[in-house]
Amino acid sequence: MKRSAIRELLKLTNRPDMISFAGGLPAPELFPMEAIREASDAVLRHQGPAVMQYGPTEGVAELRDWVAQSLSIPGRPLGREQVLITSGAQQALDLIGRVFVDEGDTVLVENPTYLAALSAWRPCGARFEAIPDESVDPDASRFRGQLERPAKLVYLVPNFSNPTGNSLSEERRLILARQITPLGEGSTVWVEDDPYGALRYDGVAPASLFQRAGARWGESSPVLRVGTFSKVLVPGLRVGWVTGPEPLLDALVRAKQAADLHSSPFNQWLVLELIRRGLLETQHPRWTDLYRSRRDTMLEALAETFPSWAHWTKPDGGMFVWVTLPQGMNSTTLLEEALAQGVAFVPGAEFHIDDSGHNTFRLNFTHAPPQRIREGIRRLGEVICRSPRG
Amino acid sequence: MKRSAIRELLKLTNRPDMISFAGGLPAPELFPMEAIREASDAVLRHQGPAVMQYGPTEGVAELRDWVAQSLSIPGRPLGREQVLITSGAQQALDLIGRVFVDEGDTVLVENPTYLAALSAWRPCGARFEAIPDESVDPDASRFRGQLERPAKLVYLVPNFSNPTGNSLSEERRLILARQITPLGEGSTVWVEDDPYGALRYDGVAPASLFQRAGARWGESSPVLRVGTFSKVLVPGLRVGWVTGPEPLLDALVRAKQAADLHSSPFNQWLVLELIRRGLLETQHPRWTDLYRSRRDTMLEALAETFPSWAHWTKPDGGMFVWVTLPQGMNSTTLLEEALAQGVAFVPGAEFHIDDSGHNTFRLNFTHAPPQRIREGIRRLGEVICRSPRG
Repeated sequence: MKRSAIRELLKLTNRPDMISFAGGLPAPELFPMEAIREASDAVLRHQGPAVMQYGPTEGVAELRDWVAQSLSIPGRPLGREQVLITSGAQQALDLIGRVFVDEGDTVLVENPTYLAALSAWRPCGARFEAIPDESVDPDASRFRGQLERPAKLVYLVPNFSNPTGNSLSEERRLILARQITPLGEGSTVWVEDDPYGALRYDGVAPASLFQRAGARWGESSPVLRVGTFSKVLVPGLRVGWVTGPEPLLDALVRAKQAADLHSSPFNQWLVLELIRRGLLETQHPRWTDLYRSRRDTMLEALAETFPSWAHWTKPDGGMFVWVTLPQGMNSTTLLEEALAQGVAFVPGAEFHIDDSGHNTFRLNFTHAPPQRIREGIRRLGEVICRSPRG
Repeated sequence: MKRSAIRELLKLTNRPDMISFAGGLPAPELFPMEAIREASDAVLRHQGPAVMQYGPTEGVAELRDWVAQSLSIPGRPLGREQVLITSGAQQALDLIGRVFVDEGDTVLVENPTYLAALSAWRPCGARFEAIPDESVDPDASRFRGQLERPAKLVYLVPNFSNPTGNSLSEERRLILARQITPLGEGSTVWVEDDPYGALRYDGVAPASLFQRAGARWGESSPVLRVGTFSKVLVPGLRVGWVTGPEPLLDALVRAKQAADLHSSPFNQWLVLELIRRGLLETQHPRWTDLYRSRRDTMLEALAETFPSWAHWTKPDGGMFVWVTLPQGMNSTTLLEEALAQGVAFVPGAEFHIDDSGHNTFRLNFTHAPPQRIREGIRRLGEVICRSPRG
């Protein structure tokens, strides 16, 4: 089945009777609407017409300062000149593709990986190759071999990845970080995309590749880090960012100027005002409490109603659970049956760079309320149990 | 002098003692800040969390409806499916380049033309060719000859163009419209970019190419029309749009999805709320009265202080006056001297696709107050009078 056909199928998920695990949406009932209203009022009263005027491509200086400070590590302070504000993290990925990926360039990604990174970089002519995962390449020896053929980009979602919910282990990060070489002619640019890191429900966060490479290589670190306020404040303001060494950032700024001149100064000031009012801190436990409980609801429902031959991830954070069925089963066929039962998910083949993953699918657990999660998983379990096993 | 060097020079224009005619900024003292505050409050109170959630790539349906209705002509109603909301008009141009321009494709533009269209399409591999202007090609016979070599795009700013302030005459539009052929395999896509049309201070507007081609070719019209709320409401919300036939729009929607998923629903609702509150109507005479008077101030000052061998346009609208000096004079050299005298403008070579226009420059008349316009033009006149004529 073609992607466009799946997209058509998934349009059905807007039906109110549909239980959708297909999107990647935050829970809108937690959006701090009253605080946003007050912050908007304050920005418009106190910042004046400048927030409604054309602004600098790099973004609002005060917000860039905040991002820089939030990512500084002891002995390696970041400055605003290392931060570019983008229209959501998606635009950061898109700009990275335009600047660093030319026809035929090798881009190493996890497989499966974030679908919209693939869609952003495919038109640039990226040739995707899979980073062998920890289970088949524990000491990254195959990965090292791969890097001897020069890769233009390495793309990683280290925390609670979309689609699998899995994270890179501490050991894996150490091993990968050792592969990072400093910026230079023909060197590989590393992209660490971390939209979900703050949505951690268990355990503690390992250090990021950005920090590790920064500590080792300083201003010659080739790691770009992409972030967003979409998951910790609201997505609808479309404020994200990318940070990294100045020569790379300068090229991204020029690309952004051609792409949309700059992102809305009003939205950037609104994000900054919400941060100054402590919304990141007040929202954090609200997100994590709700999502932890919804994740647990989904994992319990899966354990109760899915057959023993189905497997799924148990993520420590993020928004997704990833289901693997026996080889030969096809989740796109299942989707049609699930939709007939009023349940939606995204078939796993979508997220793969090759023709694999037909026996997998992605479930979102952050958007639907618990009783709908239970009911949706029950129906889905029935559909799967009824299906021939390959 | 390289573009980057000019950019560095122009950074000086942020000095408070600098009189800058370099930007293309609206007058911020006219921004309806109080109305925006009230509209923002109403949107956040009444539209609910959906305005802060992820939204459809195409844009907010109600705003698309408004754009469609505003461009409908008798017998040819437009629908929302022919409208894509973009992050400013610049993004519309950028998406058009990604979708329609491949390496080596011919793109016909006026020469000089809008600088940021060139910067958006150059990385796509556009080969720019100049549309001969009316004075050298009154019946478009050279233009016709050009179109026999297939052009991928024709790009026109019909009203008060950036940089010259000139408009296409009624006759010229008739002649150009006759060159438009319906959509089909290998057909030419026409882009009509009209950010300034509503800023008319004298005369009446001729019909647009979009309307003419739409009346003739209906759904097979190959004209995309690009618009923005930046000049008639505020630029800082970054809301623009592109409208055209569905097959072209569908391709642009897919490109936008990869570029930034979608534009902020909040900003779109805010624009819609301002429209519903009548702000387009209340703002229109405020813009046009102020800008007409500033244009007149600048034209008077030019007539009083510029030498007789300098020439300039007398635009009926928009934001720019275009100055032409004798061949051999160089406006980039002049810029350095002008900056030393505390006045900034943009050298004309910037806007040209070839190595011409070194004797031209662009002046913005909408941003500086009248006494600064007079003082700036006086200083600039002195710099020019002192300069050797070629």
